This record gives sequence, C-alpha cells and structure tokens, in this order.
Amino acid sequence: MIDERRDGDGLSPGTVTGGKVVVVGASAAGLTCACRLARLEPGRSVTVVEAREVFSFSACGLPYVLSGEIEDMDALRRTNTGQVRDVEYFATEKGVEVLAGWKATAVDTERRTLTVSRARGRETQTLQYDDLVLATGAKARSVEEQPRHPRVHAFHTWDDLQPLLKGLRKRGGLESVAIVGAGLVGCELADAFRSLWQVEVTMVEEFGAPLPRTLDRELGLIVQGHLEREMGVEVITESEVTRVVPDDEGVTLRAGSRDLRADVVVLAAGVKPVVELAKSAGVALGQSGAISVSEQMATTVPHVWAVGDCVEVRLAASGGVAHMPAGSFATRQGRVLANVLCGRQDRFLPVAGAIVLKTGELNVGVAGSSGDRSNLQRMAHRAVWLTTEDRAPYWPEAELLHMKMTYDPRTRRVLGVQAVGRGNVARRIDMATQLICRHATVEDFVQIEHAYTPPFSPATEPLAVLARLAQNQEDGLLASGPLGPFEGATFVDLRDARTRERFPLGLDPLVPADLADLREDHATLGAGRHVIVCGHGTRSAQALSFLRRRGVDATYLGGGSSWQRALAQVKEPNT
Amino acid sequence: MIDERRDGDGLSPGTVTGGKVVVVGASAAGLTCACRLARLEPGRSVTVVEAREVFSFSACGLPYVLSGEIEDMDALRRTNTGQVRDVEYFATEKGVEVLAGWKATAVDTERRTLTVSRARGRETQTLQYDDLVLATGAKARSVEEQPRHPRVHAFHTWDDLQPLLKGLRKRGGLESVAIVGAGLVGCELADAFRSLWQVEVTMVEEFGAPLPRTLDRELGLIVQGHLEREMGVEVITESEVTRVVPDDEGVTLRAGSRDLRADVVVLAAGVKPVVELAKSAGVALGQSGAISVSEQMATTVPHVWAVGDCVEVRLAASGGVAHMPAGSFATRQGRVLANVLCGRQDRFLPVAGAIVLKTGELNVGVAGSSGDRSNLQRMAHRAVWLTTEDRAPYWPEAELLHMKMTYDPRTRRVLGVQAVGRGNVARRIDMATQLICRHATVEDFVQIEHAYTPPFSPATEPLAVLARLAQNQEDGLLASGPLGPFEGATFVDLRDARTRERFPLGLDPLVPADLADLREDHATLGAGRHVIVCGHGTRSAQALSFLRRRGVDATYLGGGSSWQRALAQVKEPNT
Repeated sequence: MIDERRDGDGLSPGTVTGGKVVVVGASAAGLTCACRLARLEPGRSVTVVEAREVFSFSACGLPYVLSGEIEDMDALRRTNTGQVRDVEYFATEKGVEVLAGWKATAVDTERRTLTVSRARGRETQTLQYDDLVLATGAKARSVEEQPRHPRVHAFHTWDDLQPLLKGLRKRGGLESVAIVGAGLVGCELADAFRSLWQVEVTMVEEFGAPLPRTLDRELGLIVQGHLEREMGVEVITESEVTRVVPDDEGVTLRAGSRDLRADVVVLAAGVKPVVELAKSAGVALGQSGAISVSEQMATTVPHVWAVGDCVEVRLAASGGVAHMPAGSFATRQGRVLANVLCGRQDRFLPVAGAIVLKTGELNVGVAGSSGDRSNLQRMAHRAVWLTTEDRAPYWPEAELLHMKMTYDPRTRRVLGVQAVGRGNVARRIDMATQLICRHATVEDFVQIEHAYTPPFSPATEPLAVLARLAQNQEDGLLASGPLGPFEGATFVDLRDARTRERFPLGLDPLVPADLADLREDHATLGAGRHVIVCGHGTRSAQALSFLRRRGVDATYLGGGSSWQRALAQVKEPNT
Repeated sequence: MIDERRDGDGLSPGTVTGGKVVVVGASAAGLTCACRLARLEPGRSVTVVEAREVFSFSACGLPYVLSGEIEDMDALRRTNTGQVRDVEYFATEKGVEVLAGWKATAVDTERRTLTVSRARGRETQTLQYDDLVLATGAKARSVEEQPRHPRVHAFHTWDDLQPLLKGLRKRGGLESVAIVGAGLVGCELADAFRSLWQVEVTMVEEFGAPLPRTLDRELGLIVQGHLEREMGVEVITESEVTRVVPDDEGVTLRAGSRDLRADVVVLAAGVKPVVELAKSAGVALGQSGAISVSEQMATTVPHVWAVGDCVEVRLAASGGVAHMPAGSFATRQGRVLANVLCGRQDRFLPVAGAIVLKTGELNVGVAGSSGDRSNLQRMAHRAVWLTTEDRAPYWPEAELLHMKMTYDPRTRRVLGVQAVGRGNVARRIDMATQLICRHATVEDFVQIEHAYTPPFSPATEPLAVLARLAQNQEDGLLASGPLGPFEGATFVDLRDARTRERFPLGLDPLVPADLADLREDHATLGAGRHVIVCGHGTRSAQALSFLRRRGVDATYLGGGSSWQRALAQVKEPNT
C-alpha cells in the first residue's frame, strides 16, 4: 500500500457550491442525482418535486409482493438498515428536500421557473431553479379504448398493487385474470398469479410469441411452452385486444377474433416515457419518443437535464437508440448528472440492454440486439444456436440453457446473446454485456475467461462455445435455425438408438446415422439437402465438416433435438 | 440474415494437411489440441501418448465424487451423450490415436523423435514427429520427507481417489483425516469429508489463513471462521508440516510445534508443473518454474509446443507470469495451438486468473491479483472493502457477500476483485474477469451494466459500488481495512441502538453516533483518530464526507460491522 493520498476536487472543505437544482420526479434517477448533489456540495439547494405521496419504492419488486415472495409491501421502500425512504428520511439522512404530493405543471425556461401545484387541492407555488432535472419516469401504455373501471388494472405503480392484492385476499374474490401483453411484466405477473394464488391466467399477446420485444421467436416459443405446460397459463398469440368491456361480474375482452371473460384484466402492454412537461419546455424527443440526451444527460434546452425512465439510451450493439427503462440505468444516470452538475467529468455510455427475468422455473436473459428491440432486422447478421448445460454436465443439478448468438459477419462483432432455460442465465448475460458494451468480436468471445468449478460452471463457457460455432459457420459449417426453413430437407439423426426411442422428434423425414460412419465415409446419404441433428447442436456441427468434404449439401440443426423438444411444448392453438 | 456465406480456409474440400503431430499427455489441453487438429485436417497423423490407462477425466470433479455429490466416478469421463472417453472413443469419434499406458521417456529435438516405453513392461518404440506438443500437466507438490504409505495420500488423479473412497466406505475404516494445505483442493476436500462422511477433519496451513495463494488475509479468515464454526473443521494455521510418520494404526504429523494424529493424511499442498521431459529437450522454463510459451504456445525449441497445466500464463492485471493450472485455460490453449499448427491466426491472451470455489455453504471467488498469486505486494496499490447483498436487499433469499477491490491509484486500473460469502460469487467474478482482462479502470467499473431483477441481482451491481468507494477514496474518503491497523483509534458506531445491542462488536473504544447528527454538526467527537463504523461500509463513507469538512481526522471501516462479525467466527487458537 502507498501512503500519500490526495484530496478530491468536490470533497475538500470550503468547496464553492453551485446553483439551485430542482428535480421533477422522486424516482431512482431523480433521487440518486439529488442525494449525490447534496453529498458532494452540502451547501447547495436541492429540491425534488413528486406528485405521489409514496415514492422511492422498487417498482421491479412489485410483482413479487403480488406473488407473496416479498411479504411486506413496505420492504420495497426500506433501506437495508430498515429505514423507510420517506420525506423525513431524505431530509435528515440525505439533506434533500422532497415536496411530495406536488405536481410540476409548467416550466418557464427563460426565467428558469417551475410551477408546481398540490396534487390534491389548488395550492400553487413557483420554484426558481438554476438547473432543472427531469426525472419524470415512464407510465403504463394503455390499450385502445381502455375503460376506467375497478376491474381493469394497470401494473406499474404502488397504487396499482393494492386493489389487486385486496381482490386476491378476499375468498372467491379473484379467480381468473386476463393479462394483456406477454412482455416482461406480463410474464412476471403470470408467475405471481399462478404460483401463489392459483388464479386462472390467460395472456393475450399481439405478436407471435411471448416477450416479442425481448426475444427472437424461437426462444419466445420456449417461454410459451413453459407458460402453458409447466405453469398452466393459457397463452393467446397474434391477437390484438380491441375491446375491454367491464361489468359488475367481470370483464369481456375482444382478443383477435375471440371473446374472453375474466374477473379482472391487467394491462401490461409495456410502458412509455412521461414527456409532457419536457415537450412543454421545448425539449426535443428522440426517435424512440423518449427524451433525447447527451452522454452528460443534457437535453436540447440549456439548464434542462433529464435522467431515468423518461430518456432514451444509445445501444452499443446496433448504434441505434431505444427507450429501455431500467432501474440500473436510472441510478447510474442520476449519479452521472450529479457529477456533471458539480463540474466533474462523467458520462453515461451506450448500453448493451441487459435483461434477465424469471417466470415460473424458467429464466430468460438478453444482452444486445434481439427481438424487435433493435434495428437488427435491417442489419446484416447471422446467428448460431446451442443447447448446453449451465454447469459441468456430470453435476447432478446442472440445468439446460437454450442460447442464441447473433453477429455481423463483416465486422465479426457480436450483436446479441439470448438465453432461456432453468439454468444460470444471469451469469452468461452479465458476461456478454461487458463484452458487447466494448464492441467485442466473435474472436473475443472465443477467448472468454470464466471462473470454472463443477458446481457452478462448465469447463468451457457456453458463450465461448457459441462463438466457436459462429467461427465455424464463417468457415462454412452452416447452422439451420430451430424453426427452419426446412423445405425439402432430410433430417439425419445422430442420436443413439435409445435416445431416439425415448425422445422422438416431429421432424420428417428423419433418418438415423452414426457420427463415426459419417466420418469414415461409410454412410450413404441420398441427394438433396440434409440437416444433421444431434442432442445439443455441437456433434452435428462436427459431422458437417466431414460431409462437406464429401460434397454433401448439409447444414446442422442449431440447438439440436433439445431445442426441438422445448418447442414441442407449445400447445396447438385451440381455435 | 444475409445469404452469401464464404468457405473457410481449413475446411474446404481438398485441404493440404500438415505434418505428423505427437502430443505428450492425454489431458484436457492435449486432447483438445489433437481432436481439433484431426477435425481441421483429417488427413494429418495425430498421436497422443499417455502413461495412464484411464485419462480424459475431469480432475476438478474428483472432490465431488468423494463428497457423494457425483455418485458415479465414471461420470467424470463421459461425454454429455454418455460415451466414455477412452481409446476407442477417440479413435472412432474423433479420429485421434491415443497410446494409453505408454510413457514418453526421451526427446531428440534434432532428429525430431520421441522415445516412448510401456508404463508396465519394457517395450519401447520411437515416434517420429514434425511437431511435438507437451501437455504433461501438473502433479501434487510433496511435503518434506513424504513417506510412501497407504495412509498417506496425494489428491490429484483418478488413482488417488479409489483408496480414499474404499477407506470411507468401510465401516469404521476412516474416522479422522488430516489435510495438509488449506488451499483450493484442501478446502474442497474438507467439505467432502465433512458433508457426506462426517469424518473428523484437521487442516494444517503453513500461512496465516486458509487459501493464502488465493485470498488476502481478511478474506481468508472469513473462510477459516466458516470452516471452524459451520463445518466443524479444525484449522491450524502458521504451521508447517515437518514430519509425517505413518504406522499400522494411523499417522502422526508434526505441524509446527504440535503433534497431530489422524487415520490418514491427505497432502493438498498445491501442484507443480511436470517439466522433466521439457527440460531434457532443452525447453526453457519461466520465472514460475513452468514452461514459458509464446501467445502461440511455442516453447523456446523449434517444433516443440506446450499447452495446459505444464505452462505458465501471463497475468493481465500485474503483467507478471504465474503457474496457474486451470481446465478452462487448458482447453483454450489446446484449441489455440491446433489453429496455429493449421496455419490459422490465434493466440492465448493474458488472463485475469478467475477462480471460484465452494466449501460448505461458503462461496469464494477471485479475479486478478490477490493473496500471493501476484506481485501485488511490490506494486503501488490501494484497496476498498464492502459487505453487500447479492440480490435486492428485500429479496428473502438475498445472501451477503464480503468483497474487496484493489486498484492502482496512479493508473486507476483495477488490479483484483475478491469475494467471499453465501451469495452469488461466480457472477461477480465472471464480470470482473472480463473487465480486468481488458485493463479496465475504476471508472469503467463504476459504469458496469448488469442484468437486474430482484430475484437475481441488486439494482446497483456490487462491483460498481466497490468502484465508487475507490473513487471516493481517491477523493479523500479513506477506508480502513477490516484488520486495521487501528492503534489509538476511537470507533464511531453509526448503527441503531437495537442493532448495536443484538450484534455487539469487539472494537474498543466504540462510541455510538447518529448519521443525521454528524451531518448537522451536532455530534462532538473528541480529538485523535476516528474510524466510522456502519453495517456494510457504505453509510460510514457518507458520514466521512461531512466529518472531513469539519476537519475531523477519520476513516471508515471497510466492510462495516458485518465483516467484523464474520471475522469473529474464527476460533482462538487452542495452543
């Protein structure tokens, strides 16, 4: 250890403090910014305006209060030392004034004033600011003709949770729920309603599979299979909800061409940024409809800044922008802005867009481009697929993961990683996130170093195996996606006889073969296109290298038979 | 997706194949290299020479066969499709010839020949090579005057496991074990002997705490507390084993100034590279005593290459070299060399040295410099400590982690991350590994993006919190290490009255105080040096920013009271 330590700029005694800051929204982003400002420059005036009386709770924890995994709703707004994060807490512990129950109604960017009025009542006051921080967050997206009715709920805030819990706790009060939208929150809610309350759940999704903004279809369908077979949820896809008609007994929904009936409807069709105040202040919105900000969180209007779920982020993988609300981004942005306002160098960098999610026993994760989150469809890209154990294969608790990697064949940059399975998804996504944020190539992924021990990880990291498959593909060993197209192909099944018998596949025509025979040139395959099938999608890639030398036209089936078996869980639509 | 796909160099029909390759050692590294060579260039002659009859098993899995977590020893040498990796398997499935039971005895690097002889018997043959690959692995380090006796075991290979298992299965056959060395294998073995067999375990460690090569002392002592209190293991530190005397009834050990008695002794004092053949071939060894290789796995002798546990690796954090055997490095090196031998560009890059380990319910992880693994003691560095939940703090299954980050204050580069606790260690280590391999700074760690959802992760990644503490420290908010030095300091306890009462600390003098009071300038602290104490080591850092403005000489206690409580688990030595 060395001994001399230097004083920092912002923390030495007698620091000159900056001007008055007003923050709109006591969200994670707004409060992080305010608290850090107060700590860096205690003399500075920092006021947070918040329309709600209850604030600074973990919105991400709400589904788990519903599921009973978190027993006490107040746990979501307590610090880890047990203090409730209320007005008093922020005043005494953090030196930050929160005006709770006050709504920001107008900005005058010339005079630098913010008009606020009591959320309940008519009282109004005008706050002077030197710098204004918009941390107005996001709100639930509504569906067309969404009626205001006690049987029709959004699920985004503290206030949305109470009536649902009340209904669930009342005997016979809530027996069936229709969830509109099979996105992140929809899937978490389905889990919550099923696991603790055994409520009948029907999900209605506009697109072809659950989690359409998060996952590509061949992964979304695995989630659907799990929701249906393992969790007992009815999933209706490719159906837009066009009518929601509540009555005293329940709610009738028009979903596609069907009418559904449920005790209540929960709308979980995503969120949109709250930008009304920003627009009125002349702040420019970005392509995504959220507030466009610089890396220093500056808007297009001087002295107006924005952080959290109301801003758009830049995507490291595609270079595009997106509205991607996330608590982890919010706190980082709040901190960056506080540093910037105190004259320190800091910036919020492009993101990979890491997501992980748990629904039932299934874990879902994404880093980078996937689903319709990005402009991937317009970019040149290729993909590889893999089924893999998440630990040493001989470890008794090893679980399967189904994984997909997309990459740009010209730059070899990895664009995205997706994973679905009962195994440890989060760890792979966190690793991939670090690399995608740094524009890593397929070659960088092959070189991944990971911490190996049989109870926690396989000897070769699955992300590295995916990257090898991508390298092989660029060397000519082509993968076919789990959903095809398979027109005119003959499937060549490398699995052993016992496995073939135990786990038949619905692929047709499917002919058995042996890897050693293919290598030794014994096997005779007919003309036409062949798709080689093995268990996980790795041995079949090997077979391909022999077959290609013999001039056989073949690809291998990405993710192997395991992926097909997961897809086979999806129920036929009962039209 | 784009459609045109190009053929690769090595895989198109009619590839020109290179010369004859002989690999010494059917280890992970040697076999990976051989199999990939055979796949890339099927016409090439590839022979693997292996002294043992049983090979290609997961050595990392051996402790778990002993613990019963893996029931079938053969599971360690099966592929995930259930095939046993024996001579037949490599011949038919991989096209690789393995000469099992043959020992390599001499190399003639001029004539490029390798002499091999039957491990049992006198038969000898000479193999011609174009390229020779040394994959001779590592072997257990012996202690001074280590007797050959059935009660004195090493624990490194397949053959070491059988007699131990036999002894354990025999009723009354094995009631007490002395483990020499509390390193990685020693800790795994202690777990195995206790958890399934309830054998009395005594560990003898030369240095001041368990895992001395892996962890710094303030983390090693937490492991010691867990071994002692939770697992019922006796741990004797700072004691070298100078004599091992077996007899018909048991073994007597001289450990420091004590004599110990046990039914058997297992030597787990680390491993050393097997370099005899390399030395005889004139191959240069590195500083660590292992074979020195280039990024292409070339030794100093033309046409002689080396991969796996017999080579040394370069460390990304310190720039130094180390002998750091790891299955994950071995397979990557094998693949790199196969690519290089086929004329492809590839290289094995400097490593972070990621390790994770499970002993009892405690998880241990390291990335980068720590313990005596590196030249850290000779480098200018500073450290920060943190106790943290591994998930959202309100999540019922959230577990604590004790973490330490070291960094270079001049370059701001992070040198190492260590973590110990019941929580998810591996995920943090894997993330830190990606960043340390890329020479990331404290600022890069602050910006870490991670996948957040309450069941799996906290909203702010603990690695980012550590990095913030490091930034704060460079701004003047100084951390004191959990082990001091504390001479002349007064401890200021910020914990609330109830917590103080429930969890008293052995720090003296300890005066209670209130964060709000410190901020408001109400609290009067006497003269002299103060160390501020809170639960996890974050609120106390905040208090410091106020106190320093008032000119109070203070630091905060890294890792907080939680770390002190973990240290208090260590039993007083019963001398």
